[in-house]
Amino acid sequence: MTESPASYTDVLIIGAGPSGLMAAYWMARCGVNARIIDKRGTKVFTGQADGLRPRTLELLDSIGVVHRVLHEACEAAEFSFWGPGEDGRLERQEQHPIHDVNASPFGNCLLNQGRIERFILDAIKDCSDLEVERGVIAESLEYDETLESSGDVYPITVTLRTLSEEEASPSSTGGSGGVRNGLFRSNITPDDWDDLIKKSKERPGNVETVKAKYLIGCDGAHSWTRKQLNIPFEGSTTEHIWGVVDMVPITDFPDIRRVCTVATDHGTLLVIPREKQLVRLYLPLQAVDGTLASLDRSSITLDMIRQKAKQMLKPFDFDFKICDWWTVYQVGRRLASNFTKGRIHLAGDAIHTHSPKAGLGMNMSMQDGFNIGWKVALVAKGIARASILATYELERKRTAQMLIDLDRRLQPLFVKAQEGDSAESAAPSNGKETLVDVIQLSIAFSNGYVCHYGPSSLVHKGGEDIAANLIPGERFPPAKIRNQADGRAWWTTRLFTGDGRFRIVLLAGDLRREDQRQRVVTFSAHLASAGSVLQRYRSEGEKLDSLIEVITIHSAPVREMDFFDFPEMLRLFDQERGWAYDRIWSDDECLWDRQSTGKAYGSWGVDRIRGALVILRPDQHIGWVGNIEDVDGMTGYFEQILVPITA
Amino acid sequence: MTESPASYTDVLIIGAGPSGLMAAYWMARCGVNARIIDKRGTKVFTGQADGLRPRTLELLDSIGVVHRVLHEACEAAEFSFWGPGEDGRLERQEQHPIHDVNASPFGNCLLNQGRIERFILDAIKDCSDLEVERGVIAESLEYDETLESSGDVYPITVTLRTLSEEEASPSSTGGSGGVRNGLFRSNITPDDWDDLIKKSKERPGNVETVKAKYLIGCDGAHSWTRKQLNIPFEGSTTEHIWGVVDMVPITDFPDIRRVCTVATDHGTLLVIPREKQLVRLYLPLQAVDGTLASLDRSSITLDMIRQKAKQMLKPFDFDFKICDWWTVYQVGRRLASNFTKGRIHLAGDAIHTHSPKAGLGMNMSMQDGFNIGWKVALVAKGIARASILATYELERKRTAQMLIDLDRRLQPLFVKAQEGDSAESAAPSNGKETLVDVIQLSIAFSNGYVCHYGPSSLVHKGGEDIAANLIPGERFPPAKIRNQADGRAWWTTRLFTGDGRFRIVLLAGDLRREDQRQRVVTFSAHLASAGSVLQRYRSEGEKLDSLIEVITIHSAPVREMDFFDFPEMLRLFDQERGWAYDRIWSDDECLWDRQSTGKAYGSWGVDRIRGALVILRPDQHIGWVGNIEDVDGMTGYFEQILVPITA
Repeated sequence: MTESPASYTDVLIIGAGPSGLMAAYWMARCGVNARIIDKRGTKVFTGQADGLRPRTLELLDSIGVVHRVLHEACEAAEFSFWGPGEDGRLERQEQHPIHDVNASPFGNCLLNQGRIERFILDAIKDCSDLEVERGVIAESLEYDETLESSGDVYPITVTLRTLSEEEASPSSTGGSGGVRNGLFRSNITPDDWDDLIKKSKERPGNVETVKAKYLIGCDGAHSWTRKQLNIPFEGSTTEHIWGVVDMVPITDFPDIRRVCTVATDHGTLLVIPREKQLVRLYLPLQAVDGTLASLDRSSITLDMIRQKAKQMLKPFDFDFKICDWWTVYQVGRRLASNFTKGRIHLAGDAIHTHSPKAGLGMNMSMQDGFNIGWKVALVAKGIARASILATYELERKRTAQMLIDLDRRLQPLFVKAQEGDSAESAAPSNGKETLVDVIQLSIAFSNGYVCHYGPSSLVHKGGEDIAANLIPGERFPPAKIRNQADGRAWWTTRLFTGDGRFRIVLLAGDLRREDQRQRVVTFSAHLASAGSVLQRYRSEGEKLDSLIEVITIHSAPVREMDFFDFPEMLRLFDQERGWAYDRIWSDDECLWDRQSTGKAYGSWGVDRIRGALVILRPDQHIGWVGNIEDVDGMTGYFEQILVPITA
Repeated sequence: MTESPASYTDVLIIGAGPSGLMAAYWMARCGVNARIIDKRGTKVFTGQADGLRPRTLELLDSIGVVHRVLHEACEAAEFSFWGPGEDGRLERQEQHPIHDVNASPFGNCLLNQGRIERFILDAIKDCSDLEVERGVIAESLEYDETLESSGDVYPITVTLRTLSEEEASPSSTGGSGGVRNGLFRSNITPDDWDDLIKKSKERPGNVETVKAKYLIGCDGAHSWTRKQLNIPFEGSTTEHIWGVVDMVPITDFPDIRRVCTVATDHGTLLVIPREKQLVRLYLPLQAVDGTLASLDRSSITLDMIRQKAKQMLKPFDFDFKICDWWTVYQVGRRLASNFTKGRIHLAGDAIHTHSPKAGLGMNMSMQDGFNIGWKVALVAKGIARASILATYELERKRTAQMLIDLDRRLQPLFVKAQEGDSAESAAPSNGKETLVDVIQLSIAFSNGYVCHYGPSSLVHKGGEDIAANLIPGERFPPAKIRNQADGRAWWTTRLFTGDGRFRIVLLAGDLRREDQRQRVVTFSAHLASAGSVLQRYRSEGEKLDSLIEVITIHSAPVREMDFFDFPEMLRLFDQERGWAYDRIWSDDECLWDRQSTGKAYGSWGVDRIRGALVILRPDQHIGWVGNIEDVDGMTGYFEQILVPITA
């Protein structure tokens, strides 16, 4: 056995699923020295998670790939509720459009996880050399807590082992005529991490010791990282086995291309239309007595799923010949008691599991990775204080808890009342709520319009009187605004690129009024002064906007203002590139896009004359809201977060 | 010298610029045995053509790449006219939005030719193994006219020679500090084709004889193919030298990020904003005495262009430090007297040259390639009659002539009156027209909303009383319609995929009315009958929609109809894939896209109750319009075009 000397990396990410890749994106984009490993030899290609919520699409817009998602994905345009009518026959009971254009540029859409991972991988490649090291497993983890607060040290030691090709390629072919299934990743199958390490040790393998400053564990529900940290994964597994199948349906059920719940005597079926003529079905297969020991695994076949679907969709005909992927799972509803231990953070399924029925798993995981990623990146680069890392658990644990609560409320509505899992099925409300109620109530949460991040160094609450709907902790409500220099209409989700910078968004109000113009001039003069955050946190040789970008959105019509009417600090001059034309915008109606433009100030609850001042974090969440005069409040925000520059 | 025996290909394309690649796309998509060669060793990366018009974007939508263009391109949102005010100082005189949402889903945008070629190359790769053979030149062409009408024969013989790497890589670096320039491709530089062949012959090269059924020459203004055919290239070269530069401006000219014409005493400057902070300028550099012999080539430098721009933009400051590309050219306004000789067709600059100021060069070339491509592909596959090839020259020559006329009218408006090229500058109208007039008048033509294709076997005029705005020969006016099965809103430009199929578009009207439902049932019964074009032109083993796809667009709200209300022939059943959910659409308003939906019947001039019947060619141009009862007219259209199936 040969061991090479230890190598060093600032950040090590274990697991290259949606959460790990999102975290890796930030390392790539911010130029952090990082590595990312995955035990599987290849990425996933079919099946797995598939639903993308508006907020996730907004994040994908900020990293420049949403156009590819929208091109390939299946938009879920409408939602139908089916159930027995008075004659007992299945009938459509309600139908709703899904996309609320006033809430997000994006609706809901479906695309397999493999493609989404591909797009994030491409975004990583576009800005760095960071590559996923596949077929690599971690086999030991040491964490030296005594070094935790020492800054530029490597308290984490991980031993990595390169697997053989065979070990890294689990069989994904089940018994059903070569159709790929996901049983090997299912939670009814035991985890193979320990086995892989054991087997791999029997041959002279490539073993490497890596020392890291930070570690992000994104290694799934069976998380090896979580186990090394002895972090409890609390909750329970319910008694129902569920089936999932991606297939091309042959049916006369009229809403097979709409998102549907179909309530029947045999439980509730969930229908999700997908790309390439595929439709996904989720269906309750059987109740299992307490533990999985009682489950006859050989009984779980694609045909079992087919028969159940046929039964549930009666009197409509249903069958399929083309099946792309299928799996079965048991609902495990668990939450890690900690998301963080010192410099080690967990994300994605490693910290929360739940049923896929809320269609949120991949979204939550990507949002976890997005949240921890920029924080670790800025701290690893020495830009932000290490104290901001504590906000990760604060912010994401509450969200994860809300998700699990939602899932718990949905569960009894999907299985037959008499089969409902006894202990857990008691709905937190009066037990009489219907699926329609729960789904309608949870839309803002599910779609990611609200997330309830609490107060912290990164979230200063307040400012309700200045901007009623710009709530610190929440995402900046997207708007389509017009560029002052060229007249183009752009979504803020794309404008506020995920490049690791904070943003001061100056909602400048109406500069046609002299008093308001004077307020903006005074603010700009402050930005130019030696005491402004732009000047104070600027590293030697760096540009004035390298860490904090100032974006102005005024409320006068584009035609009545000129780019050069705005103070120079708002449109920074560059010796080589001239004026920054992408900094001055207007909440002006656009002749060729009336539906989406000219309404931003109103939707933000901001006075069109007086405007407001907003700080956005790199993830487009609102950090602080104040008046244009409140430069002290603005400065104070950054003082808590950023590392002072030492001359 | 070694010569291998002749190889055979159905279609040979010479030149892999925008027109050649568009033609190649059809070969790839339709599965035609084809080859495409280019004398250059690498594709272009910077500079060249840049403007994309709405019609071109519609075509790019039909081949599935427009989302990539829109993501990277710079949208040209507004157009400004600048000129001297009463005090002689430059001022903005007019400003107009560019995108007319009622005319096209797309506005105008700018992106360098290299990226556009990349997207078409990717579209080709997605459906075939066809690759551009680079660094390959044609050195002889023989055409055996006696074989012309003999069907499955190879009347064309071309000798190809593989160039050395050095020969295939012309220096693109000028004298100005390593900035890439386009002088080697400029029309003030002599063509190097003959030189390349001569030099290449001196070494033992790889020579190959290729026999082809069809040849498409897309080899630029100096077209070698055109010369072999002795086709006159008529017109003249004007006396002005023009400069073009792509640079990042440093200026206080307020509209530098808008499309502008700036009229000055020194002629008119054209400003075109581009991607990556670049701006392109077109400017008149100097009058040359008659022939290029009088031109001092060493005087043409980047600095000459810089100084001229500074002078023209006074009193505004102007300069640049970053230059991406520059070139100079002389306006050559020429039209080939024939576009076709037997089985050989020419496309793009090989048949028309003009100034780039109308911003149409690349668009016209791509549209040429798109037009000839599908025709040659369907004929080469034995699906369509060879007689349809004659429509290429008929359709594209008139368009090219219109382009040259437009360019001729624009020219005198761009140079100083006293310097205007004498013979040509006489505007066809009264000479008093202004730039604003000409541009406004030519918008429908420039944007590609009208093209005036004349009557032919592919264009049966008529039907004005049935659909006032569906004019045979013109493109199908795009509309956003809703899918009956899933409720999604889609543009017709994407729905009518460029896959080589004709389409019968059944504008089914309002099926809530029994009389109208009966008309549609009768029509569908005809489709099912043995005499229908679907049945008659179906090859053995092929699906019923493999050559002609039927798309239904009805006018009732989606909610008031059901997918299964429509006759089976309109939603063909497939044994493996079930019902074709992508065939039934509605001109229904969409809650989340009110601006673009629910107006299609009105814009087409079609009665919402009675509907109409439309035949679309594979390029989305209208071939025929009739009443739903007029199955004879519909059948007659296809009888003239398609090759009967022999049992």
